[in-house]
Amino acid sequence: MTTANNDIVMIENALQGLLPPDQSSERLVVEAMKYSLEAGGKRVRPRLVLEFCRLCGGTDEKALPFACAVEMIHTYSLIHDDLPCMDDDDLRRGRPSNHKKFGEAFALLAGDALLTMAFEVINSDEAASLLGDRACRLASKALASYAGAHGMIGGQVIDLQNENTAAPIEALREMDAKKTGCLIKAACELGCIAAGADEEKIKAAREYGESVGLAFQIQDDILDKISSDEELGKPVGSDEENKKSTYVSLLGVEKCVALVDELTEKATASLAAFDGDSQGLAELARSLAKRKN
Amino acid sequence: MTTANNDIVMIENALQGLLPPDQSSERLVVEAMKYSLEAGGKRVRPRLVLEFCRLCGGTDEKALPFACAVEMIHTYSLIHDDLPCMDDDDLRRGRPSNHKKFGEAFALLAGDALLTMAFEVINSDEAASLLGDRACRLASKALASYAGAHGMIGGQVIDLQNENTAAPIEALREMDAKKTGCLIKAACELGCIAAGADEEKIKAAREYGESVGLAFQIQDDILDKISSDEELGKPVGSDEENKKSTYVSLLGVEKCVALVDELTEKATASLAAFDGDSQGLAELARSLAKRKN
Repeated sequence: MTTANNDIVMIENALQGLLPPDQSSERLVVEAMKYSLEAGGKRVRPRLVLEFCRLCGGTDEKALPFACAVEMIHTYSLIHDDLPCMDDDDLRRGRPSNHKKFGEAFALLAGDALLTMAFEVINSDEAASLLGDRACRLASKALASYAGAHGMIGGQVIDLQNENTAAPIEALREMDAKKTGCLIKAACELGCIAAGADEEKIKAAREYGESVGLAFQIQDDILDKISSDEELGKPVGSDEENKKSTYVSLLGVEKCVALVDELTEKATASLAAFDGDSQGLAELARSLAKRKN
Repeated sequence: MTTANNDIVMIENALQGLLPPDQSSERLVVEAMKYSLEAGGKRVRPRLVLEFCRLCGGTDEKALPFACAVEMIHTYSLIHDDLPCMDDDDLRRGRPSNHKKFGEAFALLAGDALLTMAFEVINSDEAASLLGDRACRLASKALASYAGAHGMIGGQVIDLQNENTAAPIEALREMDAKKTGCLIKAACELGCIAAGADEEKIKAAREYGESVGLAFQIQDDILDKISSDEELGKPVGSDEENKKSTYVSLLGVEKCVALVDELTEKATASLAAFDGDSQGLAELARSLAKRKN
């Protein structure tokens, strides 16, 4: 098994261990939380926590509480994003979205509960005995800031405001830097905090996260474009667009592919600030840039 | 001005100081956060944080970050509770509810952002320099636990499940203990944590919170009953009920009034565990029991 697959198994086991037993009166909301948390995916964010913690000399055991917390925040944001008043998506990762399965009220509460639980996990006595009070406090502060009104939620606000408008590239970059980039940066930073790394390393981890986050989003747009062109039987890169701006609609496929490569190079370059073996993170950046889904 | 009024002014000033400037691209969500956070109310929970911190020998300055965080959690829960998929309320404290004013998407995000911000405030560098990393960590842990799937959110789940059914008194008590009681207990406990109180005092604070929380809810039912009887021109205590159980529908007004008194006595009795002047908290419990709205 590859390191990536090993890590995914480790993360999913840790998440499962944290979920409360669902035999209580709150059974239904715990079921809804589990449904989305266990839905799989690439687990990019918790893997980044693990990799940065390793790179800074920390153990996996130390990284796992923070890794699980970041994945909980990511999962809650998907549940709330799919709600009818937001993107109104019926499907998520090929299955019914949370509110399609459990109803809107339970999906709302499951999202709220996962967001809340992220901070319970970071600040648990188990996490504190591994990491110390200070690391737990710094991780809570960073995660809340990156996930909040001026971070991830801010990105969703910009997204709502730009709906059905052809936003310029600057607005698109600000939106993505917040909506996707902030939580990826949080993951990188939390990995460093778990290992007790200094400010210089945290800064380099943020730079890596910033580049990887933007590359990730541009690659998403490229993959969307390719799949919609294939569906319509049109050549890749056809300039028929819907109203909403994407990197592809603004820059074209070719320039986007070059930009993803450039950002991936930039990400791996920022790993020079670390003494340890950064092979895992360089590979993670490259595999995200080359991904097909 | 009374202590209560002084405290309310102090809490509202502190909340205002924490809200980010709303000139950014996220303006709209910050406006929605402010709208509900500044909507007033009795500020019972943050006052409890202040009072318990004082009783344990801590300063107001130390209590304020935790007090604001608890009020943010309370406010988010009201915003999400009013949404169409939950209670579908058009009004809150005499004004349009958050989603009526800002739309559902912004109300959802404003709630998420307030919930997230609570943990940012508790774990800020300012809070840590006043309180120390350990107190911030313990407060985060307690607040997340009381507000989560087995606390406040769990109470909302039970509420949803009991909708339109005549739940027995045990189910009603469990629901209220979680939906209302947990955050009141959190407030009492966070006040003690802010002052560095020991486990014995925290336990007594929890007992006070439990009694006050239940008395608060029963008094709510009594006030609802009186106002609906007055509207309908029926004598107070008429046994015509809607389907949903309340303490009044299950026990009658007279028994409920006695129960509120009994619980208020119990709450004040639990203050004996503290050495300091507990007059403020005894008065707070009594004023809540006697309130007319």
